[in-house]
Amino acid sequence: MSAAFRFEVLRSEPGGARLGRLTTPHGVVDTPAFMPVATHGTVKGLAPRELRELGATIVLSNAYHLAQRPGVETIRALGGLHAFMGWDGPILTDSGGFQAMSLGQLVHVDDAGVHYRSHVDGRAGRLTPEEAVAVQEGLGVDIAMSLDECVPAAAPPATVARAVGRTTEWAARGLGARSRAETALFGIVQGGLDPALRAESARALTALGFDGYAVGGLSVGEPPEATVRVAAATVTLLPAARPRYLMGVGTPRDLLRFAAMGYDLFDCVLPTRNARNGTLFTRQGKLMIRNAAHARDARPVEDGCPCYTCTRFSRGALRHLVLAREMLGAQLATLHNLHFYLHLMRELRAALAEGSFPARAAAAAGAWA
Amino acid sequence: MSAAFRFEVLRSEPGGARLGRLTTPHGVVDTPAFMPVATHGTVKGLAPRELRELGATIVLSNAYHLAQRPGVETIRALGGLHAFMGWDGPILTDSGGFQAMSLGQLVHVDDAGVHYRSHVDGRAGRLTPEEAVAVQEGLGVDIAMSLDECVPAAAPPATVARAVGRTTEWAARGLGARSRAETALFGIVQGGLDPALRAESARALTALGFDGYAVGGLSVGEPPEATVRVAAATVTLLPAARPRYLMGVGTPRDLLRFAAMGYDLFDCVLPTRNARNGTLFTRQGKLMIRNAAHARDARPVEDGCPCYTCTRFSRGALRHLVLAREMLGAQLATLHNLHFYLHLMRELRAALAEGSFPARAAAAAGAWA
Repeated sequence: MSAAFRFEVLRSEPGGARLGRLTTPHGVVDTPAFMPVATHGTVKGLAPRELRELGATIVLSNAYHLAQRPGVETIRALGGLHAFMGWDGPILTDSGGFQAMSLGQLVHVDDAGVHYRSHVDGRAGRLTPEEAVAVQEGLGVDIAMSLDECVPAAAPPATVARAVGRTTEWAARGLGARSRAETALFGIVQGGLDPALRAESARALTALGFDGYAVGGLSVGEPPEATVRVAAATVTLLPAARPRYLMGVGTPRDLLRFAAMGYDLFDCVLPTRNARNGTLFTRQGKLMIRNAAHARDARPVEDGCPCYTCTRFSRGALRHLVLAREMLGAQLATLHNLHFYLHLMRELRAALAEGSFPARAAAAAGAWA
Repeated sequence: MSAAFRFEVLRSEPGGARLGRLTTPHGVVDTPAFMPVATHGTVKGLAPRELRELGATIVLSNAYHLAQRPGVETIRALGGLHAFMGWDGPILTDSGGFQAMSLGQLVHVDDAGVHYRSHVDGRAGRLTPEEAVAVQEGLGVDIAMSLDECVPAAAPPATVARAVGRTTEWAARGLGARSRAETALFGIVQGGLDPALRAESARALTALGFDGYAVGGLSVGEPPEATVRVAAATVTLLPAARPRYLMGVGTPRDLLRFAAMGYDLFDCVLPTRNARNGTLFTRQGKLMIRNAAHARDARPVEDGCPCYTCTRFSRGALRHLVLAREMLGAQLATLHNLHFYLHLMRELRAALAEGSFPARAAAAAGAWA
């Protein structure tokens, strides 16, 4: 592991769950941890000081999007991504592999890398595994992700196998291109829903030796039981001494379930995107704030919740702000949802620390457990 | 003046400017004061705790808009407008007279009141002067405005004269409809650009006796020198012992100029609306953050500005957030612009307190002075 990084497993459960501590150049991340998503350099609607208040310790951004706009050189000129975002804690960036899939016809992938038309200005661009590392190192992030080829859940077996091979080759090329000790590099296991391909991918990547390992290509349209099966089979193939990151997952239930398997890091747009649609997370489940039933409800979104939204605003007021399309509605809903997620992770870590896992975490998750 | 209110003039300049203190059921407002605009129950993009941090002491909301959505009964059920907004400081509401003008063809005005089609759901509605008072008292605001008829700058003399007559009659009817000691009522002087009509309106309203007096129907399309002429002539006709509110004004220069005449309260959408368009207020003048010149500028919007935006974000970062249409861009720009306005008012009051008016205020206004 890069000298600027350290990962310690402080406690482990027989089932695989573990309490950990990831030390980075910009601070410590207690794991299991949820990373709020700041794709374009901001968690939508929240200032960095609000993320701190919520107890976020690390955020996820996207190197592909930032390279398109405003560009890596611009961010470097402005002091690097931390200064640019106004966030002095750890940052992990995804490299662009997932975007290559989600942007669909704008993208062509071959052995050299990803060829795309910019979603911002339509210009043709290319991203090689070496460039992906250079971009993320240029941004000055704490954790960079290898460029991977991510394929949809329904991809034919030959496509999945080819993506695994490419992802391994790209991983090796990315490793060889490293030039900055303050940026850790994680490899990404692919392999779709095929256990043999997942095992092959995990073996190849661990043989190369990364600072941490991610499992990608899940939560891309497959049935939930397939996600669980593949995630469970893959986690045992990843070195226990390195952080394990399950990408793009998930619901509060998912966080409990996959932390129980031994995953340490998570990210998902669910709490923030749902907030902007007026869907709030509570221990009782989802609360759709637009529903007329909440119009004159003076209770907070969640009784007893200490977040700013719940201590200051009624359901009725939040409903009004959302229906009136006021920014503050999205801001307050985002604040609450991230509080729910980050509180859940704190309870999960406390349960692991005191030996009450999963009971204490399940209590915090309520109906989601 | 209603028992729950007190207005003291602490110091006066020979030219008319005065330092004052307005006591309301929800706290004290040091004057001259600028009221951030929270039309639909929120300053767009800012939480109430941010308004407090900026030093706002009073906000302006709009009874007409809130009566349309979510409705007065809903706000009452949720504990009144203060609880609804999450703002425990003083609130002043405009009644709807200005909306009757600005919503144009959706509105018909006769002696009975304002007849409109709701901009929210298209339903026909009516607002009489008595109802305007009832609505604002129902919201529980600290300061209500009389229903007035506001006409465009280009209105023919007969229309302006009729509006003055109606505004006086409505003012009397509104006064007669009062039922709540905790809500002060201000009358609104109309009269367009005609000094005689302005004088007639001011005389009639002061004879009725209000808790404070507003000057309306300015900043509605007339040339700036006409605004100055009418505002200067009208202020001398208003009782010195009562607060004077110049509605919908203005630029930083306007605030200095009209405070110098003896106006105490101001509101304007300029700092908040401009912020959302990427126009920032600085002592050097307007800064258009979208300009390419700012792309790699690591300086804050304004050197030395202590606001969160300027202490944490570069011009380049703010430009990116605005161009990427991220909510945070509008939020940070709004924060800075309101800081500029509220800081200017603090300096203006300090200048009045220490006898250095207008020099100290002019220094804070910079190029705007």
